[in-house]
Parts: sequence; structure tokens; C-alpha cells
Amino acid sequence: MSQPAWLDAIKWNADGLVPAIAQDHASGEVLMLAWMNRDALAATVAEGRAVYWSRSRGKLWRKGEESGHVQVVKDVRLDCDNDAILLRVEQEGGIACHTGRRRCFFQSLENGVWRETEAPVRSAADIYGRRPASD
Amino acid sequence: MSQPAWLDAIKWNADGLVPAIAQDHASGEVLMLAWMNRDALAATVAEGRAVYWSRSRGKLWRKGEESGHVQVVKDVRLDCDNDAILLRVEQEGGIACHTGRRRCFFQSLENGVWRETEAPVRSAADIYGRRPASD
Repeated sequence: MSQPAWLDAIKWNADGLVPAIAQDHASGEVLMLAWMNRDALAATVAEGRAVYWSRSRGKLWRKGEESGHVQVVKDVRLDCDNDAILLRVEQEGGIACHTGRRRCFFQSLENGVWRETEAPVRSAADIYGRRPASD
Repeated sequence: MSQPAWLDAIKWNADGLVPAIAQDHASGEVLMLAWMNRDALAATVAEGRAVYWSRSRGKLWRKGEESGHVQVVKDVRLDCDNDAILLRVEQEGGIACHTGRRRCFFQSLENGVWRETEAPVRSAADIYGRRPASD
């Protein structure tokens, strides 16, 4: 894959990765944080959908490739230090999290305990056909 | 500093850090991404203000300690994989970025070029008394 010049502006970490935040472009909700390498970010821009680097699987992860919960990218932003990405996305299916919740940030610290603040919209078994998965 | 049990739920990376997103609790804007170690997150919760770990300075960084742009923490969330934090904050002064902008994510990718989308509210020289700083 060709590597456009704008990719050189980014400060990739020692593993060649940068953290990428996905935010719902309409509601403003922060949906998730994942990681991208150069190929993932290049593919995200070329395809107009979020493509991350799966650290656990060691390969590109086209968000929604198994779940159908594609993130259509509206805007790609870079921070002042050039070491974090913000995507504003349209979340297909309204579910970003592999647990079937709208977003991954569903644990809230309350009096020294992490509490789940919302229930899944769909079960993971329903989304993934009963096979455990991380997408 | 004592280390409460809820800190053990977090999957700290090889450097003992976790990425932390700060979001404006009122506007929903994603302000910045920084890093926390155990002491930083414990201090954030104990003090009710965002405390990060400065990787460049190798010490705790009480956001706003030099700029006055303190982040008052409204809510602390953890994601599904226990390896990313989301803070919802009240941004004092309305400026999160050390460049004097409201937020750090002010570079937008447009036709293969990173473009600055907003001007500083205050100059860094004005904020920091003409001394270069990273807070």
C-alpha cells in the first residue's frame, strides 16, 4: 500500500501504532479507543470506514467486518502532539462495543467500584453467532 | 499513596500506563488524550481533577498547574477491555490545549493535508508567561 506524506506527520509509537478515538458524530458520545498502524490509517482514509490494527490478532481489523457494525468516517483529526487520532463516525447498528453495547465506556467508577451503566442492546451471541469474538 | 482495589481492574501497559481521554462534559467535545499511571489515576479520583503522567517530563502532571486550565472531573469511565479511561470534565478557562486552543484535536485531514481548524483562544506566551511549556 502506498504511504501518503500526511502519514509521516504522525508520531507512531515504538510498536508503530497510534491510539485512535472513535466518537459518534451526531451524539458526541465517545464510543471506543483502538489502535492504528500506518496501513490501518491509510485504509481508513481510503475506504471511508474505520480500520484498526488488532493487537490481539496481529492484523488489520475492518471494524464491523464480523458484526456488521461498520463505522463510517466523517472526519479524521490529529492532536497537537501528532500522537493521537480522533475519528468522528456514523456508527452503523448503533453498537460500537463487542459486548453489544452502544459504546465501550460503560463502566463508571462509583464509590470505589466499577459499575456497569448500561445493558447490551444485543447479546454478543446474537451478533457473532455464539462464537466469542473481539469485534 | 495507597492503591485502592479498583485500580487493579485496569490493564496497565508495559510502561505501567493507560490512555485517558478527556471529554467536555457539557459540549461533548473530545479535548485531549493523555496518559496515566496508577498514581495519576488515584490522584485524579482523590482530588477530583485530572492528573496525568507526563511521559516527556517523567512525573505527575496536575493538568492546569501552570496554565490554570484545570480539568474538574465529573465522571471516570473504563472501557470493555479495561485498558482505556474516559474522563468527563469541566474545562476551566475553556482551554485544554497547551497551544491555547479549546482542544488538542484541531488538525483535520482535508484532501491529504492536515489543516488547522481553529485559532488559539489565548497565545501560549500569554498563558505561560512566554516560557515554552507542554501543559
